[in-house]
Amino acid sequence: MKKIGFIGLGIMGKPMALNLLKAGYELTVYDVLAERMDEALKAGARRGLSGKDVASRSEVVITMLPNSPHVREAVLGRDGVLDGAKPGTILVDMSSIAPLASREIAAQAQAKGVAMLDAPVSGGEPKAVAGTLAIMVGGPQETFDTVKDILAKMGSTVTRVGAIGSGNVTKLANQIIVALNIAAMSEAMVLATKAGVDPEKVFQAIRGGLAGSTVLDAKVPLALKGNFKPGFRIELHIKDIANALDTAHELGVPVPLSSVVMEIMQALKADGKATNDHGGIIQFYEQLAKVQVRA
Amino acid sequence: MKKIGFIGLGIMGKPMALNLLKAGYELTVYDVLAERMDEALKAGARRGLSGKDVASRSEVVITMLPNSPHVREAVLGRDGVLDGAKPGTILVDMSSIAPLASREIAAQAQAKGVAMLDAPVSGGEPKAVAGTLAIMVGGPQETFDTVKDILAKMGSTVTRVGAIGSGNVTKLANQIIVALNIAAMSEAMVLATKAGVDPEKVFQAIRGGLAGSTVLDAKVPLALKGNFKPGFRIELHIKDIANALDTAHELGVPVPLSSVVMEIMQALKADGKATNDHGGIIQFYEQLAKVQVRA
Repeated sequence: MKKIGFIGLGIMGKPMALNLLKAGYELTVYDVLAERMDEALKAGARRGLSGKDVASRSEVVITMLPNSPHVREAVLGRDGVLDGAKPGTILVDMSSIAPLASREIAAQAQAKGVAMLDAPVSGGEPKAVAGTLAIMVGGPQETFDTVKDILAKMGSTVTRVGAIGSGNVTKLANQIIVALNIAAMSEAMVLATKAGVDPEKVFQAIRGGLAGSTVLDAKVPLALKGNFKPGFRIELHIKDIANALDTAHELGVPVPLSSVVMEIMQALKADGKATNDHGGIIQFYEQLAKVQVRA
Repeated sequence: MKKIGFIGLGIMGKPMALNLLKAGYELTVYDVLAERMDEALKAGARRGLSGKDVASRSEVVITMLPNSPHVREAVLGRDGVLDGAKPGTILVDMSSIAPLASREIAAQAQAKGVAMLDAPVSGGEPKAVAGTLAIMVGGPQETFDTVKDILAKMGSTVTRVGAIGSGNVTKLANQIIVALNIAAMSEAMVLATKAGVDPEKVFQAIRGGLAGSTVLDAKVPLALKGNFKPGFRIELHIKDIANALDTAHELGVPVPLSSVVMEIMQALKADGKATNDHGGIIQFYEQLAKVQVRA
């Protein structure tokens, strides 16, 4: 499989597409915003005119789009991927979307002879550029085996976790834990600071024990500097937690903490902080407690 | 300082006292339940008749009791430590109690010429036996310097984090993060399992990224086996979160997630699960979602 279509050349999609070009694949690209394609075209990609056009010229079609509705539109909509894809084409959706949406889209693709994987990523723009994303894949083993080498050009770990939708389920599990671990760190550190204890000393005292986490080590030092530059923006984490809540409600799983952290992020968004790093969840607490966690 | 008094020989206090005897200190012990003293007496401790009696025979008095009211009673109550302590005596409260209670008790001790440290521990019974607890200390630097060698016989890390109460503030920060990280793991893993994905694969896929934590690595493998033997009991974590909520409310710090995890633990307690390990927080989710996270 040498002919790849790539739809969605945003902050993440563009560097991912460039890494495929660098690896020697024949790439046809498409984005609804034409100027987003410029860099890939200059690097040797062919210009696609629509999802349909891209699919008609590709053996594997990759989509990297903001959320479930965009993927539905690009794949199932008019002049979409399924309008142009021949039977045997493989569709790899690398967007982070609702797992139940992945399953529905895959079923419609299947009906046209198109096998689909959901393969959301974690790691953000720097790792997209470096080609070191973590890629979590759901879908048939044999489809996975066919495109694994392609995915490996964009990520340093490519793990199949189960059937279609499993990649996005894993991503949601990841995002629930990250948001809640940040909020946990925030409640603890703001309480300690307001109680008059040096937050840096609290951090050093607890990080080696059961409270230790990658979030603690990554986000406390930034909070101590008041640095909330993204990183991963609160508005994107809102999208992921919205998908987690929808999925949980449809499946009958209570997620009370996730629903509270959603409200906290919504409050920050209402306060104009949606584009801050998700480490800025601590600002919700700092503002209400009238204290700043600073070294 | 060779003469030490030790009040409270429960699950934690007894092995801590035995480690001090082993190190060669002259120990006078007291517990309201006389039989709890037996092992220490056999190992060479002297029997104290009351807090007052212990204090009158000691240069340093250590208390290791369940919660704030017990420490108040043992120190400030009739025949308590302050009734017997000479000026210059040092009081080290190693119980996990409300930081504001530590400050009040210390002020009353100070009025009698007794300097106090709060020095709660983390690590549980096995580390109490091994003498490898983490000890977080609040109080004057010079008092800390005087007793540091004594504390080092019970713990492998002895850290002064600030003024009186800071030890317990740090402990509460630790316990907030641990409870919430366990609940975060639980929401994520139960959702993934109910969505049909192998929880072991989800765990392996996310543990190396930003979702990674000591809680994830310690508690997911136990949940996968359905092993909720303590460890650290839910009823003890309820006590710590109750102190965290009281402290937060008195200081004006919002802790919405801590209040939700409190309700989750109360629900488990009402269901007869208070003596399970706090990793059993996941059972709240498993029962309601009617699914078990199992390998």
